[in-house]
Amino acid sequence: MTVIATVQLGITVGDPEANLEATAGAVAAAASAGARLVILPELSDSGYVFTGEPETRSLATPADGRTLTRWRHLAAAHQVVIAGGFCELGGDGRLYNSAAVVDAAGVLAVYRKAHLWDAESLVFSPGDGPPPVVNTPFGRVGLMICYDLEFPEWTRLAALGGADLIAAPVNWPATGRPEHERPAEVIKAQAAAAVNGVFVAVADRCRTERGVGWISGSVIIGPGGFPLAGPVLADRPALLSADCDLLAARDKSVSPNNDLLADRRPELYAGVTAEIAGSNPSAPVAH
Amino acid sequence: MTVIATVQLGITVGDPEANLEATAGAVAAAASAGARLVILPELSDSGYVFTGEPETRSLATPADGRTLTRWRHLAAAHQVVIAGGFCELGGDGRLYNSAAVVDAAGVLAVYRKAHLWDAESLVFSPGDGPPPVVNTPFGRVGLMICYDLEFPEWTRLAALGGADLIAAPVNWPATGRPEHERPAEVIKAQAAAAVNGVFVAVADRCRTERGVGWISGSVIIGPGGFPLAGPVLADRPALLSADCDLLAARDKSVSPNNDLLADRRPELYAGVTAEIAGSNPSAPVAH
Repeated sequence: MTVIATVQLGITVGDPEANLEATAGAVAAAASAGARLVILPELSDSGYVFTGEPETRSLATPADGRTLTRWRHLAAAHQVVIAGGFCELGGDGRLYNSAAVVDAAGVLAVYRKAHLWDAESLVFSPGDGPPPVVNTPFGRVGLMICYDLEFPEWTRLAALGGADLIAAPVNWPATGRPEHERPAEVIKAQAAAAVNGVFVAVADRCRTERGVGWISGSVIIGPGGFPLAGPVLADRPALLSADCDLLAARDKSVSPNNDLLADRRPELYAGVTAEIAGSNPSAPVAH
Repeated sequence: MTVIATVQLGITVGDPEANLEATAGAVAAAASAGARLVILPELSDSGYVFTGEPETRSLATPADGRTLTRWRHLAAAHQVVIAGGFCELGGDGRLYNSAAVVDAAGVLAVYRKAHLWDAESLVFSPGDGPPPVVNTPFGRVGLMICYDLEFPEWTRLAALGGADLIAAPVNWPATGRPEHERPAEVIKAQAAAAVNGVFVAVADRCRTERGVGWISGSVIIGPGGFPLAGPVLADRPALLSADCDLLAARDKSVSPNNDLLADRRPELYAGVTAEIAGSNPSAPVAH
């Protein structure tokens, strides 16, 4: 069993030093609670609601820069693996909404968000690589960011790539929902866990930033699709943790004759990789 | 606006005449409530918990046989479209867990379940065709059956094929779940609606059959992922209806810069159509 933790905290846009200090405190608290894997929110060093490209660029750092170096030191000090979001200045000069998995030895993976949300596309370039799946001593950790999680193709790719757990740094902007209903973002994360038989751990944020509020829906979900901790759904810092047997996610059987991945019919799924179909629906089949 | 109805009812295994009578009554009630589309459960003519292949065969009918002929008459009498499950004897002599969309003019589509659940594979052959999408005067109706709905590739194919609504006849066997949690099957249906921006209408059944109980989770879900009616979650007959603007499902925009289908990155999804990956996860990416 491995304690997984997700950190929900306020982030101060434009003040990376303050944000790195805050995440350092949160990582220490998670480690004290026994966590081996600590997940931080999306863009946890920079904040999210940028005034434009120049501000974003001023806050971005290379993958070998300030943020991941700090995380490496934190990982070493606390003997944890950290998965979190940061504002990346690419070697190509472009800006990416990225996330990394870091341990004491260094950076295990850097991932660039492939599905950009709203104004992100005005400042960030989308990534072109699949969600990485990283081997750790306690299991395999897949990584994706926020809106990525709402594309079932993407969560499936992580599961097919061997992920036992999908770590998802997010900044979920607040949206309306019917009373007594969970946010659709949480429902989608639950379904991603259930259809793939994987753990999903989401680190969201709190505290309104430049007029944007957040769902603050941090949650740790088991492979059956049910929350093990959270969703928080309250605008406050929170440290969630759950004791998870990540290797249990490798058993995909769901009945004596069914297996979530083996039951797939990939030979029938070609349409999923085609460009968008036109408005003509499939022809009705009449026998 | 179009009233959509799903019928949850008890089915008597081995007594198609009684079952056709019961569904006729339910269709009449749905039509009285203003429904234009009425969805019936999976295998609504035969029952589900078969003693084996011989019993199943004895209950199966061709697509031009007893069940769909009766539905056509019902559709004509009540001026409705019926989507429901039936036990099909194929022209090839094989048995299929099938569903059809029928109106007054005849059979608009027959679909054979592609993802078989548990002992179904002992008696039924899986279908090899995609989920059909049928044009009706009030919108485009996609069709799939029970476990199919738990494969996000399948619901995505229906949405890419133009479905405004996915009609899902099901027989959801009862499974355990934490108190105060919705069944994972319902969560998956909600997520299928939300990630595709489509309506999803599920007709489940009630009354224990040969020792098997049911979730009885009939539900009508809007394109935002939230229930419009149901889930019932009670072992009793139920007629759910909801007034739906199916054409609204054609607007996939979810922010000023986002569209649920256009935001897909199909060029990155090739792995979804590949056979199952081995146990080697993707190589970590280190920048």
